[in-house]
Amino acid sequence: MLFENRITSLFKIDLPIIQAGMVWASGWELASAVSNAGGLGIIGAGSMYPEVLRTHIQKTKAATHKPYAVNLPMLYPDLQAHINIIIEEKVPIVFTSAGNPKTWTASLKAAGCIVVHVVSSAQFALKAEVAGCDAVVAEGFEAGGHNGREETTTMVLIPMVHKAVKIPVIAAGGIANGAQMLAAFALGAEGVQIGSRFVCSTEASSHIHFKNAITESKEGATELGLKSLAPVRLLKNKFAVEILAFEKQGASKEALAERLGKGRAKMGMFEGDMENGELEIGQVTAMIDTIQPAAEIVKEIWNDFQAGVEHLKSLPFSRNF
Amino acid sequence: MLFENRITSLFKIDLPIIQAGMVWASGWELASAVSNAGGLGIIGAGSMYPEVLRTHIQKTKAATHKPYAVNLPMLYPDLQAHINIIIEEKVPIVFTSAGNPKTWTASLKAAGCIVVHVVSSAQFALKAEVAGCDAVVAEGFEAGGHNGREETTTMVLIPMVHKAVKIPVIAAGGIANGAQMLAAFALGAEGVQIGSRFVCSTEASSHIHFKNAITESKEGATELGLKSLAPVRLLKNKFAVEILAFEKQGASKEALAERLGKGRAKMGMFEGDMENGELEIGQVTAMIDTIQPAAEIVKEIWNDFQAGVEHLKSLPFSRNF
Repeated sequence: MLFENRITSLFKIDLPIIQAGMVWASGWELASAVSNAGGLGIIGAGSMYPEVLRTHIQKTKAATHKPYAVNLPMLYPDLQAHINIIIEEKVPIVFTSAGNPKTWTASLKAAGCIVVHVVSSAQFALKAEVAGCDAVVAEGFEAGGHNGREETTTMVLIPMVHKAVKIPVIAAGGIANGAQMLAAFALGAEGVQIGSRFVCSTEASSHIHFKNAITESKEGATELGLKSLAPVRLLKNKFAVEILAFEKQGASKEALAERLGKGRAKMGMFEGDMENGELEIGQVTAMIDTIQPAAEIVKEIWNDFQAGVEHLKSLPFSRNF
Repeated sequence: MLFENRITSLFKIDLPIIQAGMVWASGWELASAVSNAGGLGIIGAGSMYPEVLRTHIQKTKAATHKPYAVNLPMLYPDLQAHINIIIEEKVPIVFTSAGNPKTWTASLKAAGCIVVHVVSSAQFALKAEVAGCDAVVAEGFEAGGHNGREETTTMVLIPMVHKAVKIPVIAAGGIANGAQMLAAFALGAEGVQIGSRFVCSTEASSHIHFKNAITESKEGATELGLKSLAPVRLLKNKFAVEILAFEKQGASKEALAERLGKGRAKMGMFEGDMENGELEIGQVTAMIDTIQPAAEIVKEIWNDFQAGVEHLKSLPFSRNF
């Protein structure tokens, strides 16, 4: 290991950099590239039928001998089928999100999996710890995609979660470079989970139109909305602007669900319909201006993280206060 | 100076800790206490008639020989009267907020003031730099009170502002302790502006009921709303819950303004009406559990900041990547 802390020890990885499991973006190509680069790559099962997930797991195992993980949003009808495949394929690490960590953590751990749960509050972090999770991802308001109702930002969330639990904390939301990774460590995190930056990697299965839209986006390009359904941060394309305006006019939950329809996320992020599709991305989209290979992203973040530590070592203290 | 960087040099202060100028909270007692402790205390002119501001400036000068500042929201009808008093009383440093920095920066600087403008985007930071400001405060979504429309959080905003301007950046929003201060420095800030924590200081003129409500609040206690008027982060008391629900039903700007009425902020924060008053506070309210003297707050944050630097120095790197 190049960096030895509780996160790199838990996952048996070199660097405490975790690529988020994301719908329509993180299949075997991205996950294996990140794991091969020394981080932890995660297959996003949220947009995969069970047998598709099995294929991605098998291809990941063929493409890397390093540890990898599967992210499983616990709200799908065929969740049991997903769980069975994860256990059959001996996936070493599972990141669960949405739903209650009590439901599945014990059986996954009994099957030998390391289990990490994604939370957006200290209260839920504590529930995950009690449920037996090995670590938590604490994800702030600035993160892309589905998000917490309390809107707590990474700057406030990480210290609160760090204080609430004894298990290690992985910070997510607003982290795309080494300076932000260092800030997360200053707040008490022992690892970072990075989403948007990896959506914009060569290996992500996201549509090239979506990757280009990320590189071109400016500050203020995203908004968190659809709060009465499930809060989600979207790139403000034509679809998002319209549905967010509809929401602000006081549209009911049912009317919003109807307007949203089915398959919007696939249409936008995977099929590249930049007008009518749903495009989930974090606020950091404004800072991303190139599509890079995942290994280059990992290396750049790690180098900048180390440079940041050196910078803080040279802070101009005159003497103790 | 105990810490020599561009911010402590600019303001001629010991520590790069700035107490935010806040309506109904930061009069001469708080500002002078913070300045005497080695930080920069700021008188919040936003809730003061011109002659009240003059009294607070004179009392501050009597209570400290250290530098202090006045915060001036540039949207009041008698702004010229405030400016005249600031110049007559030779206030050394002015923090302007809201409005366009072009309008007043040149005349304040011609009168010998150091001028800092508060922004919520890199775009406005650049405008402040072009207008001749000496530094900017970049304030994230998690901050209390009035806030930007783009909802960019401190974690994302600071690196973007740091990249956009050459003048030094002071981070605000989500900063209440030394770990958060260190995170801000990791992101490129050279100083921090802290609000909520100082609202909960002995010297703040905030009503004791409000201070107690802060110490008792939990995560998720605040919400940013009234976006069609001017976005503001509020503690979710009876008044806030009602007006935020009204807004979500699609209430018009005019209907919201009527419901808000006049004098709500004073009623809540200064007069202590915890049900019907407006209570402006940041997300960090959930982390604050004691009312302390301002000097103790400054010292604690500084000690924790230094301890954080020591912690990062001992990060378990094995060798370079």
